[in-house]
Amino acid sequence: MLDLLNLPVTVPASTASVVIRRALRDDLAAIMRLLSDDPVSAGRGDLARDEDEPAYAAALDRIIGDPANELLVAVTETDSIVGTLQLTVIPGMSRRGSTRLLVEAVRVAGTERSSGIGSALMRWVVERAAIDLGTSLVQLTSDAARTDAHRFYRRLGFVDSHVGFKFHVAIA
Amino acid sequence: MLDLLNLPVTVPASTASVVIRRALRDDLAAIMRLLSDDPVSAGRGDLARDEDEPAYAAALDRIIGDPANELLVAVTETDSIVGTLQLTVIPGMSRRGSTRLLVEAVRVAGTERSSGIGSALMRWVVERAAIDLGTSLVQLTSDAARTDAHRFYRRLGFVDSHVGFKFHVAIA
Repeated sequence: MLDLLNLPVTVPASTASVVIRRALRDDLAAIMRLLSDDPVSAGRGDLARDEDEPAYAAALDRIIGDPANELLVAVTETDSIVGTLQLTVIPGMSRRGSTRLLVEAVRVAGTERSSGIGSALMRWVVERAAIDLGTSLVQLTSDAARTDAHRFYRRLGFVDSHVGFKFHVAIA
Repeated sequence: MLDLLNLPVTVPASTASVVIRRALRDDLAAIMRLLSDDPVSAGRGDLARDEDEPAYAAALDRIIGDPANELLVAVTETDSIVGTLQLTVIPGMSRRGSTRLLVEAVRVAGTERSSGIGSALMRWVVERAAIDLGTSLVQLTSDAARTDAHRFYRRLGFVDSHVGFKFHVAIA
């Protein structure tokens, strides 16, 4: 949990406002559905299968218990989960000892795309969360296939200055 | 500090072996020099200036005191620092609750390039550190200008599947 974040917070989206709050253990099924609702995630095995629930539950516990991480959900007035993202605060030496804010796993429900929720979440990250956390650099990587997302991040002021590499480790 | 890493460890490079060990507060000046020795870092303000030492010292303390982070140095037989990199363990929900290993700030001294030290460091990360830490995905971003580094990461088995975005936050 990132104690310095002022949550919950209501942010304006294009259609209606959404509330950003910390994810709770009770949100597990909704977050699993949100991941599986995304074609790129589904292609990597995020299929909201019952048999995978223990692995996701353990992961959620690790995130909630980690002082450098926060899993957030965007909810409607009726507390229906329509978006999620994860923040990680990372101290570093480069850029004169800058602390970074890494954004991972930004997802918005398929039914809510073009509703401005993704934009509202990310504006809150760069305009509010990064300030409260004292992080001067916000960074994220986006799958090369997500060209719509890339346009979206550029519109928000992100610069695609880097190449993101992944290596899959075979763990016994 | 990442307790699960078995350090120090001696790894073979092309010319001579190097030892990977945890960075100490006494390594501050050498790490500042290593950052400033890199043209891309120098262009971002990492110039090893005396006036910046307090900021770097505070950053080094934050990294050393953080249970999810480890700053490593590669040293010669005579304990001369010739390389550095930072590891961050990040719990996550996506990819069925995978924990990731983020690699940041990989730097090798200008005088030691082509000596196989970068390769030795990164092989140790994917073949040993990631296993010991139980992280099934290793990820990093590399400045788009570092085309030599990109070839190097591809040779090691990294896939450049993502675009890396950065946003600079104006902190008062």
